[in-house]
Amino acid sequence: MTTGEQFNVAVVGATGAVGAKMLETLDKKNFPIKDLLLLSSKRSAGTEIKFQNKTYTVQEATPEIFEGVDIALFSAGGSVSKKLAPEAVKRGAVVVDNTSAFRMDPEVPLVVPEVNEEDIEKHNGIIANPNCSTIQMVAALKPVQDLFGLSRVIVSTYQAVSGAGNEAAEELHDQSKAFLAGEELEANILPASGDKKHYPIAFNALPQIDVFQENGYTFEEMKMINETKKIMHDDSVHVAATCVRLPFFTSHAESVYVEVDKEGVTVEQLKEAIANADGITLQDDPTNQVYPTPLDAAGKSEVFVGRIRQDLDNTKGFHLWVVSDNLLKGAAWNSVQIAESLVKNNWLKK
Amino acid sequence: MTTGEQFNVAVVGATGAVGAKMLETLDKKNFPIKDLLLLSSKRSAGTEIKFQNKTYTVQEATPEIFEGVDIALFSAGGSVSKKLAPEAVKRGAVVVDNTSAFRMDPEVPLVVPEVNEEDIEKHNGIIANPNCSTIQMVAALKPVQDLFGLSRVIVSTYQAVSGAGNEAAEELHDQSKAFLAGEELEANILPASGDKKHYPIAFNALPQIDVFQENGYTFEEMKMINETKKIMHDDSVHVAATCVRLPFFTSHAESVYVEVDKEGVTVEQLKEAIANADGITLQDDPTNQVYPTPLDAAGKSEVFVGRIRQDLDNTKGFHLWVVSDNLLKGAAWNSVQIAESLVKNNWLKK
Repeated sequence: MTTGEQFNVAVVGATGAVGAKMLETLDKKNFPIKDLLLLSSKRSAGTEIKFQNKTYTVQEATPEIFEGVDIALFSAGGSVSKKLAPEAVKRGAVVVDNTSAFRMDPEVPLVVPEVNEEDIEKHNGIIANPNCSTIQMVAALKPVQDLFGLSRVIVSTYQAVSGAGNEAAEELHDQSKAFLAGEELEANILPASGDKKHYPIAFNALPQIDVFQENGYTFEEMKMINETKKIMHDDSVHVAATCVRLPFFTSHAESVYVEVDKEGVTVEQLKEAIANADGITLQDDPTNQVYPTPLDAAGKSEVFVGRIRQDLDNTKGFHLWVVSDNLLKGAAWNSVQIAESLVKNNWLKK
Repeated sequence: MTTGEQFNVAVVGATGAVGAKMLETLDKKNFPIKDLLLLSSKRSAGTEIKFQNKTYTVQEATPEIFEGVDIALFSAGGSVSKKLAPEAVKRGAVVVDNTSAFRMDPEVPLVVPEVNEEDIEKHNGIIANPNCSTIQMVAALKPVQDLFGLSRVIVSTYQAVSGAGNEAAEELHDQSKAFLAGEELEANILPASGDKKHYPIAFNALPQIDVFQENGYTFEEMKMINETKKIMHDDSVHVAATCVRLPFFTSHAESVYVEVDKEGVTVEQLKEAIANADGITLQDDPTNQVYPTPLDAAGKSEVFVGRIRQDLDNTKGFHLWVVSDNLLKGAAWNSVQIAESLVKNNWLKK
């Protein structure tokens, strides 16, 4: 930040898994905050949270409380965003929304700054932060699209429980302890807290993230498919996704198959393109067993890519392994990047 | 078994993870055993093992010990098979080998009974049991190939630690306990016991199973690619694999994308074909959150298939989720099925 100007910032969902990371990121990036407002549901209001040596009391999010707020970072679930984001905008705030509420709204930019930062300028008060599993994939695919063209993507995900919130992380923790003690596993949250049935995640894999749609895909899979096309500005690219929840706490991993348009692309060219891209770290050296893993990526803001191989049958086909901290680049870090871009480019006021 | 005849059976690697399941399966299937010989390395010789109310002392596997053996089930690693399987054959035994030692040997049938049982008859003393992750996939793909033709397979695997043996399962157990206690994780076995570096598997995902080949694929990935073509008798089918080790004990899961040859195939037709296939159970009802999981499949002999969906861009493309106990259908159960077929079809003697 070089403007010297400071901003009134609200964090909605401050007591949640992503909210905590939002605060961590605002601090780490030294975001120019004048006043900070920590908001939550009525239930969590009153919680005390420390930020930069000051203790804040979390307040209930209401329409009126957004009076005077410049930037509001929302991450308290889709229904809260649907209700309160327009109220915040009405009162002059620009909202960066980390829920699925507005992502596919044609009036709302859906942004990963490394991919389509310029879309932020077109905002009408709300900018949507994409789904965590989408963000890290499009960040890795952007240099591929730019240099070689992209016709097709088939992804299978390996997703951490923290994507489903603190309660899901606690569930994995408690179930793991019970399993190792030979006790029965109790399942109340995963695969989707609002769904009818719950299955144990400890020492298991659940091929369901979010609820099923009528077409047999889960909502998470449809998010990856639709959001990727919107962010990359390419409705013609074929995207298919299978999303799986796994027993680890942090970072999503993705096995991604891509087909490029250009003939004759080599693995070395692809590695170079990815290594040179913003926000990406190449970790790809099979001879020395170097590749990204969720445990290694946890707590880091970059997207890590490795295991880049050419398909053995299709010279335009390549396989990639993409890993990133789902709460950072997949959520908080990307949201704060958008807020920084709003400030840096003077895109706050319309 | 209806012949009434009984056979001298040797289990090589009786003290290992698969060896234990071999004995369980021989018992469950009431295999017609005359004498049972339990064999291992020198190190494990002397171990006592109970089988059908009798206690056996494990003996060291030597060339001479196979004298008089009719069927030898090998699962003690590739180097043991390479050395001793020919010795067993020389002495009149038929070997069912669960290692990678002879799988790609053109003289050795590679068999999943539901797919290519007839290949067993062509044996020259050795029949190879495919890799665990290959077995469950080809079992699911066989009805698809038969009815609709199969041009392409792209698989991403979710594999249990027990595929790397008892020591890997102990490592996951110990690391999980340490992680939950906030202690440092010690890694000595995974991703591949013979490789240079070891990484923690607890609450993590490792995109390496077995060692890397010169082309950047792991040996596990190349096994899936090459074995699938051999078992399905189709060198023209395109197969791509990404294999990932995950923190659960039992059952491999697979996210499989297939392209069929025939136009106009529906999800319902695919479901029906798979539901009617031998050894497969369809678990596919998204409305009621019914799909296979590793924890559910553990201890069962079938291959479970669910999440069958048509690709949204390619009408000939379909996505499947395939789960099976890697130690049963992926190893012991398939080996004993081959042994049963040898007996039932009178294919033991050449």
